[in-house]
Amino acid sequence: MTSSTPHSAREPRRGELAILRHIRSRTAGQAYGAVRLGIGDDCALLRPRPGEELAVTTDLTVAGTHFRLDWHTPESAGHRALARGLSDLAAMGARPVAAFLSLGLPRELANPKGRWASSWVARFLDGLLALAAAHKTPLAGGDLSETPVPLADIVLIGSVPQGKALLRSTALPGHLLYVTGTLGGGAASLPHLNRLARQSAKQSPAQSKIRPNPPRVPAALAPLLDRHLWPQPRLAQGLWLRRRSLASAAIDLSDGLSTDLSHLCEESRVSAEIDPSLLPIHPGATLDYALHGGDDYELLFTAPPAARLPNSIAGVFVTRIGRILPAHRNGPVVTLLSPKGPRPLKPQGWEHFS
Amino acid sequence: MTSSTPHSAREPRRGELAILRHIRSRTAGQAYGAVRLGIGDDCALLRPRPGEELAVTTDLTVAGTHFRLDWHTPESAGHRALARGLSDLAAMGARPVAAFLSLGLPRELANPKGRWASSWVARFLDGLLALAAAHKTPLAGGDLSETPVPLADIVLIGSVPQGKALLRSTALPGHLLYVTGTLGGGAASLPHLNRLARQSAKQSPAQSKIRPNPPRVPAALAPLLDRHLWPQPRLAQGLWLRRRSLASAAIDLSDGLSTDLSHLCEESRVSAEIDPSLLPIHPGATLDYALHGGDDYELLFTAPPAARLPNSIAGVFVTRIGRILPAHRNGPVVTLLSPKGPRPLKPQGWEHFS
Repeated sequence: MTSSTPHSAREPRRGELAILRHIRSRTAGQAYGAVRLGIGDDCALLRPRPGEELAVTTDLTVAGTHFRLDWHTPESAGHRALARGLSDLAAMGARPVAAFLSLGLPRELANPKGRWASSWVARFLDGLLALAAAHKTPLAGGDLSETPVPLADIVLIGSVPQGKALLRSTALPGHLLYVTGTLGGGAASLPHLNRLARQSAKQSPAQSKIRPNPPRVPAALAPLLDRHLWPQPRLAQGLWLRRRSLASAAIDLSDGLSTDLSHLCEESRVSAEIDPSLLPIHPGATLDYALHGGDDYELLFTAPPAARLPNSIAGVFVTRIGRILPAHRNGPVVTLLSPKGPRPLKPQGWEHFS
Repeated sequence: MTSSTPHSAREPRRGELAILRHIRSRTAGQAYGAVRLGIGDDCALLRPRPGEELAVTTDLTVAGTHFRLDWHTPESAGHRALARGLSDLAAMGARPVAAFLSLGLPRELANPKGRWASSWVARFLDGLLALAAAHKTPLAGGDLSETPVPLADIVLIGSVPQGKALLRSTALPGHLLYVTGTLGGGAASLPHLNRLARQSAKQSPAQSKIRPNPPRVPAALAPLLDRHLWPQPRLAQGLWLRRRSLASAAIDLSDGLSTDLSHLCEESRVSAEIDPSLLPIHPGATLDYALHGGDDYELLFTAPPAARLPNSIAGVFVTRIGRILPAHRNGPVVTLLSPKGPRPLKPQGWEHFS
C-alpha cells in the first residue's frame, strides 16, 4: 500500500512491526514506475508495459554460507544480497522493475539495543537500498521471520521486450566468447578477509557471537577487496548488448568461470575452449581464481565472429577469452588451451552441500 | 530453460546438482501458460496478458517457527509453504501464474541416505507440487542453499485485470464484514499435534534430531487437524468476488482475525466491530481461537450493505460477522460486541520476535 500510513504514537521500537515500519518508511520516497502498489497489502501490484516480458529471479543469501558476520559489514551483506539478483537480470539484458526481500533474523538482531540506525538490520538495509537506488529498483514487498542465522531471499523482477532476452541456451559453434571486467578478484579477496578478520578479532573481541566486528579494509587492499565486498552488477552492459542484438547468449559469473561456462554449454548443447593467455585476471588474483573463483558478477557472453564489439561497454572492459565449439559426445564440455594442447577444464566452482 | 536437457550418465545422486535436476525433472510436464521460460536460465521469463497487472508476494516458511519437523510430515510442510502464498493471491482476487521456491536445507537433508523418492526433500516437493498442480501453478524457478534448519521462501506471481485487484485499503464505513469458511480450526489443532507428537516420540524415537517421525493423525481428529495440516487457499472464492465486483476490500486470515482485521482497518483508516455470536467457529475450536488463532487461510472481506452475497461461494460458506465503522481518534480499531456493550479487541495474533 502507500507508505504514508501515519505511525501510531505507540509505535513499537522492537520486533516485527518495528522492522516492517522501518522498512516501509525507508522505502516511502521510491519512484515507483511499474509498481502500482508497494509494501502494505497481501501482494504488491506491478503494471508491465505492453510488449514486455518479465524476468524473475530469486537468490537466497545465508550468513555462514554466502557471507560471514565477522568478515562483512551489514552494509556489504545487504549490497551483495541485492547484487546477486541484479546480476541475474543483467545476464538477461533486463531492466530492473522491483525487488522483494524475505528477511530472516535471529531474535538478538531483531531486537537491537541502542539506536535503530546503527543496528545490524538498519545497516543491512542501508547497503541494500543504496544499491537499489543506484539502479532505480524500488523495494516493493517481502516477508520477515525469525531464523537461527541472518538470511535474505532477494527476488528481482525485470522487464525486457518480448522475445529479446539474452539466454544461456542460444550459444552457437563458431561464436566467440567474451567477459566483462576482470576475473578472480572476488575469490582472491577471501584469504585477505580471513586474515583481516582474525587480526580484528584479536584486537577488539566481539560483543557476542552474532554481533562481531568485521575488519576495516586497509586502503592498499581496497581495489581488490571491493571486488568481493561491493560487486557491481553489469546491468548497463547487459542492456547495451541486448539493445544492439550483439550477444547470442549470456550468463552471469557468480559460481566461477569453469562452472558457469559449463552451464551455458549444457543449456546450448555446445562445448567451448578458453585461451588462458587472454583472461583478464584481476591484479592480485591468479589464473586459478580467474578460472574457478566465484563472486565476480561479470557477464560471460557469446557473439558471432562478424559482430564488432567495442573494447569497453559503459566504462567496463570487454575481453575475448575463447570460442564456442560443437558438442562432442563423451568429450569435455570446456577445454583450456595450453602449450601442450587443449586440456579438459572441469567445473570447480561453488556447489552447495558438496 | 526447457526441462528436457538430457541428464548426464554421471548424474550426481546427492548435493545441489542432484536436487536441482530432481526439481527440474519433476516440473517438466507443467502446463506453462504465461511462463515462457522456466527453470534453467539466470531468470524465468513471464509473458503477461495485455491489460493485466501482476500480483507478487513472498512468504518465508522456517522449521521451528512456521512448522515443526516432529509435527508436520514433509508433504504437509511443502503444502503449507505454498498455501501461504496462494492465499495472498486469493486475497487480491488474482489468478496464479507462477511460483518460485528458494529452498534452504541442512546438509543432512540435502544428502539423503536411501531412496530419493522417500527423502525429506522429495516428499516436501510432493506436497508443494500437488497443491501447485491443483491450482494450475507452474514452479518456474528458485534457488537452493545450505541453511542450519530447513526453510522455504515461496514467491507467488498472479495476474489480475488492471485496477481490479481486491485491496486492504478500500473498506468503507457502513460496509459489512464477511469471512469464508470457518475460524479457529488452524490454532485449535496445535495442542492436539503437540500431544500426538509426544506420544509418537515415545513409541518410535526419531533416528536423528533433524529427521523425526511426525505422528499419524487419528481419523476422528482429521476434520480438525486437516485445517492446520492441509489449509486450502480460497482462490476460487477470491476470483469469484473480484469478477462480480462484490467485495470492497479483502485480506487473508493468516495471523488471526484480531490481527488481520486490524491491518485492514489501519490500511483503510476505518474501525470495525465484530459480533461474536455470528462467528463460524470450527467444531473443536473456541471463541478465542477464532478471534486470535492464525493459520486459517480464510478470506476476510467487506461488501456494501446492498450487495447480495450468497450463502456459499464455490462450495465454501460465507458468513457475515460484523461491520465497518468510521475511524475514531484514540478509540480502539476493532471492538467486539457483548451483552455489556462493545469492548476493545486488541490484536493478539502472531507476531515474530515478540
